[in-house]
Amino acid sequence: SASYRRNMFLKKTLTMDTLNPQVKAVEYAVRGPIVIKAGEIEKYLEEGGTKPFSEVIKANIGDAHAMGQQPITFLRQVVALCTFPELMDSPSFPEDAKWRARRILQGCGGHSLGSYSASPGVECIRKDIAAYIEQRDEGVPSDWENIYLTTGASDGIMTILRLLVSGKDSSRTGVMIPIPQYPLYSAAISEMDAVQVNYYLDEDNCWALDINELYRAYQAAKLHCQPKVICIINPGNPTGQVQSKKCIEEVLHFAYEENLFVMSDEVYQDNVYTPDCQFHSFKKVLYEMGPEYFNSVELASFHSTSKGYTGECGFRGGYMEVINMDPEVKAQLVKLLSVRLCPPLAGQAAMDVIVNPPQPDEHSYKQFHQEKSSVLGALADKAKLTEQILNAVPGIKCNPVQGAMYAFPRIFIPPKAVEEAKALGMQPDMFYCLRLLEETGICVVPGSGFGQKDGTYHFRMTILPSIEKLKVLLGKVRDFHISFLKEYSALE
Amino acid sequence: SASYRRNMFLKKTLTMDTLNPQVKAVEYAVRGPIVIKAGEIEKYLEEGGTKPFSEVIKANIGDAHAMGQQPITFLRQVVALCTFPELMDSPSFPEDAKWRARRILQGCGGHSLGSYSASPGVECIRKDIAAYIEQRDEGVPSDWENIYLTTGASDGIMTILRLLVSGKDSSRTGVMIPIPQYPLYSAAISEMDAVQVNYYLDEDNCWALDINELYRAYQAAKLHCQPKVICIINPGNPTGQVQSKKCIEEVLHFAYEENLFVMSDEVYQDNVYTPDCQFHSFKKVLYEMGPEYFNSVELASFHSTSKGYTGECGFRGGYMEVINMDPEVKAQLVKLLSVRLCPPLAGQAAMDVIVNPPQPDEHSYKQFHQEKSSVLGALADKAKLTEQILNAVPGIKCNPVQGAMYAFPRIFIPPKAVEEAKALGMQPDMFYCLRLLEETGICVVPGSGFGQKDGTYHFRMTILPSIEKLKVLLGKVRDFHISFLKEYSALE
Ligand SMILES: Cc1ncc(COP(=O)(O)O)c(C=O)c1O
Ligand SMILES: Cc1ncc(COP(=O)(O)O)c(C=O)c1O
Repeated sequence: SASYRRNMFLKKTLTMDTLNPQVKAVEYAVRGPIVIKAGEIEKYLEEGGTKPFSEVIKANIGDAHAMGQQPITFLRQVVALCTFPELMDSPSFPEDAKWRARRILQGCGGHSLGSYSASPGVECIRKDIAAYIEQRDEGVPSDWENIYLTTGASDGIMTILRLLVSGKDSSRTGVMIPIPQYPLYSAAISEMDAVQVNYYLDEDNCWALDINELYRAYQAAKLHCQPKVICIINPGNPTGQVQSKKCIEEVLHFAYEENLFVMSDEVYQDNVYTPDCQFHSFKKVLYEMGPEYFNSVELASFHSTSKGYTGECGFRGGYMEVINMDPEVKAQLVKLLSVRLCPPLAGQAAMDVIVNPPQPDEHSYKQFHQEKSSVLGALADKAKLTEQILNAVPGIKCNPVQGAMYAFPRIFIPPKAVEEAKALGMQPDMFYCLRLLEETGICVVPGSGFGQKDGTYHFRMTILPSIEKLKVLLGKVRDFHISFLKEYSALE
Repeated sequence: SASYRRNMFLKKTLTMDTLNPQVKAVEYAVRGPIVIKAGEIEKYLEEGGTKPFSEVIKANIGDAHAMGQQPITFLRQVVALCTFPELMDSPSFPEDAKWRARRILQGCGGHSLGSYSASPGVECIRKDIAAYIEQRDEGVPSDWENIYLTTGASDGIMTILRLLVSGKDSSRTGVMIPIPQYPLYSAAISEMDAVQVNYYLDEDNCWALDINELYRAYQAAKLHCQPKVICIINPGNPTGQVQSKKCIEEVLHFAYEENLFVMSDEVYQDNVYTPDCQFHSFKKVLYEMGPEYFNSVELASFHSTSKGYTGECGFRGGYMEVINMDPEVKAQLVKLLSVRLCPPLAGQAAMDVIVNPPQPDEHSYKQFHQEKSSVLGALADKAKLTEQILNAVPGIKCNPVQGAMYAFPRIFIPPKAVEEAKALGMQPDMFYCLRLLEETGICVVPGSGFGQKDGTYHFRMTILPSIEKLKVLLGKVRDFHISFLKEYSALE
């Protein structure tokens, strides 16, 4: 019969051969093989299996609540009030949360969190964000019409790249990214078929951005693509450095000279721990460089509800501020955002609380302030502790965790272990991290997932577990590392 | 000076000339020029300006809450409990809502809605969805590992297309879509540089899908691209038809024969109004065609929290079920989802309530059931009313609104008006809709934004306003249309 005949030749429509090759090219280590393995081990333990450890500790992803961090009460009160406005009548909710919720709902169609917002976001939230930025940047003007709410920072970053990337062959768009990087960037670049242009951060100098390296990378890239955009992550993920004002000036001057669009990923702007470091927004530094710069350099900066002291990843809230964008292009941006309709309203509401927190004269101020300081204080302690314990291990060297939520220590992997990994067709640091997982239950991400100088090896771990758990974790890493060195050392 | 020299040649990096041309090619009428105009008029009225009307009625977008529809209480209770678990102690929340919220939180990292979920969604919600589908489809098996939560259906549709679209020149992927269509499809196709392959729905036959037309479109497309996927919207947007089982069988047979991936957009599955129509899921029909079909045709179907009786657009909840996908490709799908981390957790929770609503023996059943029936009953009334009033207007012909949330009447536009529109460089139906907006304050979308047979004109309006408002709206449309005909008729 016809269908029998057809079946003899049956092939799926969508196979590894027909799949969009740009999707195939995407690499995404943060949720890659090691995390899948960790999940399997977790299931195995749950089902009564035994291992040399009793639980898997996931230090692979910057997911604060999953590590036990408690939500900021005020933020959740406002979002709950928006979700279920009947609570406005409840005496257990404070007035300052209620008026914020009322104001947000007034900005929503039908006064409901269930309606689509305008594609760039709810107007009053955009205005609150602009006011917040002005305050953060000590008076540098911010226009609310330059603010676009997003579905997490991820969405904003992908959207801006989508506008920028085009061309074929030697006219393909080059996107400059730091190495090591947060792998959203390399994944987006693969997916969009752009050219990844690596500039290496200087590990010997606390992962600082070296301007000469920028020029080198740019000149080399110009030979085979059109570099159009430079991405910076500050504070850095996975590297934890906080950029100095001078360094930011240099980057902006470089972008100005070479006519590059600047994307500054500032999702960790509230996560700065060391007293000698301070967060400087790219926008403020640009402003201080004078109108010549401030009125010309095209800059998009990104923020998120997922990090900071709130850690509200699941809300998928975020915003971007875009300055000096051509007005016609802006209309195209809005069109593109419109196709996906709008960012989630609960995430928009959560963002609003972050930019419009309780003020000293408000009822909720004290509790809010306590909760915020406690989260940030603990993170600072854990940053310090992580650096100290790791640096005491022979064969591990860890730069100070100045900001963000990760340590990215360099690990010495003995040549014998490198050989063994290669024989298994594996990156040496992947081999190392898999062994660490199998033997201790600790899940971290190999440095190769973020990029690193050839011949150097790292892993990324978050500093998010509670201080007790973190101590246990670091102790296990130390013991593992020492026995790993012993096992593969030529001396044995 | 150097910067002065530079400035003389100053050009932005991102201009209409350098913008990704695929973004430029995107068209998106639902939030296009007419909606921008409507916003301007609204502002003008707010600021005290005068018009021949006192308010703008936005019938351009399927946004139920914005039109005054009230949320389903139970859904909001569950989401509020998830958001602010302190409410678990409140006696004003029913136990059936509490246990659902507890169960969802148990599936979340750190029992918090603020953690990232696994990229395909919270496991217990995926399981609830699979159970729901099995029940809906009267026992057809559904595997929870084939379920992926999404950020609204839009996100799921874009993601599946992203996997499928590839190739250059004559090997570019062809995507078959109905005309008229929901413009997310044409926008995604432009953005991804695929080839849009139109198959025309049969207006004279209640917008039914005609299988001969499918073959025609397919054969024609094969000459210049590789058609790999067919998209169906059932119930239809903007056309409101509900497909018969026989017609779905024909489509599936066609896809089977021609080896096409099937995308069935079933976001309006709960929105069926006429007694002679019934929703049949593509999956169930495929199952009933026998294992030969059920085990081979690759099918992705999409659902959303935005439509149905909940209308929770702002939550950006949705899911897709994908069957017969190559396991290796599935791993690629998960990788792609991982780059954006996860769908919003509040949207996932809302989806869970939709697939796991109160049962007859539960406390909240009665109220839930009342609210649900009241929304769906009112929609059925409004569907009928809209069709009747429009069909009584000379020069307007409207097919029955069997399902979904829109009427898509055909309008006669006199040749003189067509000429005038063309002289203005405008589509005639855009000209018509702009006049309608200017004169009555009613905002509808021109048929050209969805596609229509050459020489025919339509507009799309939602049936979502309250029955009183809808009557006013339809009366104004009638009066406007009659005077428009008079103005441009040769007889005048
Ligand atoms: C540097 C950086 N940018 C962006 C993101 C994306 O976060 P989200 O999409 O949750 O806002 C992350 C998340 O870890 C990040 O570390
Ligand atoms: C046919 C159809 N598909 C998909 C969508 C997308 O809806 P959402 O992304 O809100 O789930 C819509 C919205 O109107 C629609 O009408």
